[in-house]
Amino acid sequence: MNFDFLKKAEEVKPKLTAGFHTVTGGQILSEKETAVYDFRTHLVGYPKIYFSSIGAHYDAPALIKGRFCETAQELDEDTSLYNGWISKGWLQEEIIHLDELPCVYEFKRRYAVRYIKVEVIATSPKYKLKIDKVKIKSVTSAPEQIAVCGKDKREKTIDKVALKTLSECMQYEFEDGPKRDMRLWLGDLRLQALTNYQTYRHNDLVKRCLYLFAATADDEGNISQCVFTKPEVAPDDASMFDYSLLFISTLYDYFKETGDKQTATDLLPLAEKQIEIARERFNGDEIEDCARLGWCFLDWSLELNKQAGAQAVYIYAEKTLIKLLKEFNIDTSDYENDVALKSAKAIESFYDKERGLFVSGKQRQISYATNVWYVLAEVFNAKENSSILNRLKEYKDAVKPVTPYMMHHYVQALINSGNACDGRKVISNYWGGMVDRGADTFWELFNPDNPDESPYGGKAVHSYCHAWSCSPSYFLRKYFAEK
Amino acid sequence: MNFDFLKKAEEVKPKLTAGFHTVTGGQILSEKETAVYDFRTHLVGYPKIYFSSIGAHYDAPALIKGRFCETAQELDEDTSLYNGWISKGWLQEEIIHLDELPCVYEFKRRYAVRYIKVEVIATSPKYKLKIDKVKIKSVTSAPEQIAVCGKDKREKTIDKVALKTLSECMQYEFEDGPKRDMRLWLGDLRLQALTNYQTYRHNDLVKRCLYLFAATADDEGNISQCVFTKPEVAPDDASMFDYSLLFISTLYDYFKETGDKQTATDLLPLAEKQIEIARERFNGDEIEDCARLGWCFLDWSLELNKQAGAQAVYIYAEKTLIKLLKEFNIDTSDYENDVALKSAKAIESFYDKERGLFVSGKQRQISYATNVWYVLAEVFNAKENSSILNRLKEYKDAVKPVTPYMMHHYVQALINSGNACDGRKVISNYWGGMVDRGADTFWELFNPDNPDESPYGGKAVHSYCHAWSCSPSYFLRKYFAEK
Repeated sequence: MNFDFLKKAEEVKPKLTAGFHTVTGGQILSEKETAVYDFRTHLVGYPKIYFSSIGAHYDAPALIKGRFCETAQELDEDTSLYNGWISKGWLQEEIIHLDELPCVYEFKRRYAVRYIKVEVIATSPKYKLKIDKVKIKSVTSAPEQIAVCGKDKREKTIDKVALKTLSECMQYEFEDGPKRDMRLWLGDLRLQALTNYQTYRHNDLVKRCLYLFAATADDEGNISQCVFTKPEVAPDDASMFDYSLLFISTLYDYFKETGDKQTATDLLPLAEKQIEIARERFNGDEIEDCARLGWCFLDWSLELNKQAGAQAVYIYAEKTLIKLLKEFNIDTSDYENDVALKSAKAIESFYDKERGLFVSGKQRQISYATNVWYVLAEVFNAKENSSILNRLKEYKDAVKPVTPYMMHHYVQALINSGNACDGRKVISNYWGGMVDRGADTFWELFNPDNPDESPYGGKAVHSYCHAWSCSPSYFLRKYFAEK
Repeated sequence: MNFDFLKKAEEVKPKLTAGFHTVTGGQILSEKETAVYDFRTHLVGYPKIYFSSIGAHYDAPALIKGRFCETAQELDEDTSLYNGWISKGWLQEEIIHLDELPCVYEFKRRYAVRYIKVEVIATSPKYKLKIDKVKIKSVTSAPEQIAVCGKDKREKTIDKVALKTLSECMQYEFEDGPKRDMRLWLGDLRLQALTNYQTYRHNDLVKRCLYLFAATADDEGNISQCVFTKPEVAPDDASMFDYSLLFISTLYDYFKETGDKQTATDLLPLAEKQIEIARERFNGDEIEDCARLGWCFLDWSLELNKQAGAQAVYIYAEKTLIKLLKEFNIDTSDYENDVALKSAKAIESFYDKERGLFVSGKQRQISYATNVWYVLAEVFNAKENSSILNRLKEYKDAVKPVTPYMMHHYVQALINSGNACDGRKVISNYWGGMVDRGADTFWELFNPDNPDESPYGGKAVHSYCHAWSCSPSYFLRKYFAEK
């Protein structure tokens, strides 16, 4: 642990501000009956329920199941059927006893919630339960509400939902999702930071998160994929190939936004280190072996081959590092040589001239992820990149994006290659598709072609307010704002 | 509410004293694994569990089911199968989330417990749960430990268990059971008070309970079957024919023990009122109609006919009232006339001369309950009463006692009719039978002939430390103590 960096992170730890929300009740419930309370928008906070009894004096504890749902469709899910590989502990539900009535039951856990469903498991034959009202104390470190941008009604709605998504994820750190994992992940942070610069401008929160990653890097410079802050600051036990490289990009964006030379100077050695570490995954100038690569995320698609895409992320990150070093007038010729070699080898090994697309793995898989990252890495020029993206659209068997995280990169690639209008349409169709389905905040996963898809083995643990989905507010403001 | 009486009750509200108990752990648990912690004796209090994690940093909440069992056999019960008519809310179990590890989870509910069973419903693939230790803060208002009495090893054990039973039920009031209902019931109070006079001598707790019943009696003088004290003092919405009458007996015993004239004077009018109210249930001098009688408890036997037994309790209570009034030199001739009429009518209507036993209802049911109460009411003399109890033993089809409450009255009847040795044997066999089955405290229900019997439709809600089972310590000390 680098305690100097930890100290700098803690110095800018934000305070949370609270909001108070009430839904009035009056429902009288017998055993096995349920009531649903709708807060009309997504909230992150601490619910409390005002219970009383009707009939004779309560003579036995009431047994209640509270379910906290981010979306309406969750209300009808039978969470007892969830048997996926990530913990049932993430299911937002509690079974509680009411030993005295009337009472105000305050939930100690923080929930991400729009709807609260209360099910009466047991009362006694002598009384019914009455719910007088339900309250939530919401929390965020987002400084204030931001006005939505633009004139187009659909885009304004998308922007509103994206702003809400980001602010709900702004707590003591940028969290990936307030339902799950409630934690600082590097890949999410980068998109949150970009969106934050266009919106809440809570730049100290980005600074804090950069220092948290730096403080918890190991002695070899490996940056953890995510950082725990409870009960104390600690790294996760794994790094991700692409996320670690994108630390460079997050630092560069932060420096360009803030001009904070001290932070950039502090963290530059660690940024350089990421290239050095990533190079160890190469055979010569090529990522040859997915086993040697380790975990490279790119997208939450279980079929996606990562070989070629990983090399593109490397090139993208090394080019960003060069830009950052140039800001400090540091010689970059070695990095530039390396970029040239890696780029040439990528074209040689992964570019299928016949199809005009990058392919990955022995099966020569064509995916959005691979090609988008080569566009972002600017291995070819904008015109050729534009052609790649157009050809990709024609190629119906291409592995498509599953997450808003990958969709973000697709939109960025469209914009960077001169197809801003296409990018804008993707925002309207993809993020707008979530709005059409009632989203108050943007989801962790959304595959319009397969809405029930889950990389976790069950949708009950999905997060419906997820940091990496917030970037429409970045795109709409940075590229499509009315002048 | 009589606030003068309530004030007198609150003035003697006891303080609780705490004990601290630890079982060291060290168990490492994966998903679906369980551990059991044995505190070696029955406790009433607040558990806390010291959890930590093994493996990678915990990355998801652990989901834990805690079960709190009074007896070893409960450990293997599947409480999810319980579907009886009293609330599932009484099942001593909680499902909890551990959001941070390590942590000390403090249960806010009070439990009656010897064994704590911890089941890991979920962790994550990255960590296992470690339980470092389990603690209980126990509470009681019993003043101190009392030495066991006697020389017989079996009786000493029975006395120890009975003392424990009573002290566990001594909280802010005499509770019926610390698992369920945790409440002041009149029938239980009477036996607790009798045992208390021979043991802990916490006579102010009896005083408090008498005033709580008196404070919550309605304007007509109906005494509630039980009193709630949370969130405020309140009566239950029903009275029981026999329990209300036994208020007289509880008051008389208290006065004889303490000589507290003020309390007796305060509560005497209410005691007299109980006879007046009970008389309204008669047709002439006879209880003819069970519907008109209302709920007369006698025993937790669903087949027991209460008609004749109710009349015996009335005679018993009226005779006790006469004794109490005589202490204050109040004229009792009307009550004595009434006792004579009711007794004569009882013999005429319920005494089966051929069998030499009292019978009840149209089916002329023979039961221990009915005959025991006629013996206690001393409708016949001791010699005849002794014959009745002997004939009862011969009568194999007699409805037998189900509860220690009824067994108490049987033992008292044996002693009163000159069969103290038989009474002593019943204590050894019946209460000793619970000891043989591992009881640390005496149970709410114990039918040696049908151990799975439940008036509630399921054993999972049974209370295994129950006030009305504590009276062996009364009998052993009052009648069988070594001189």
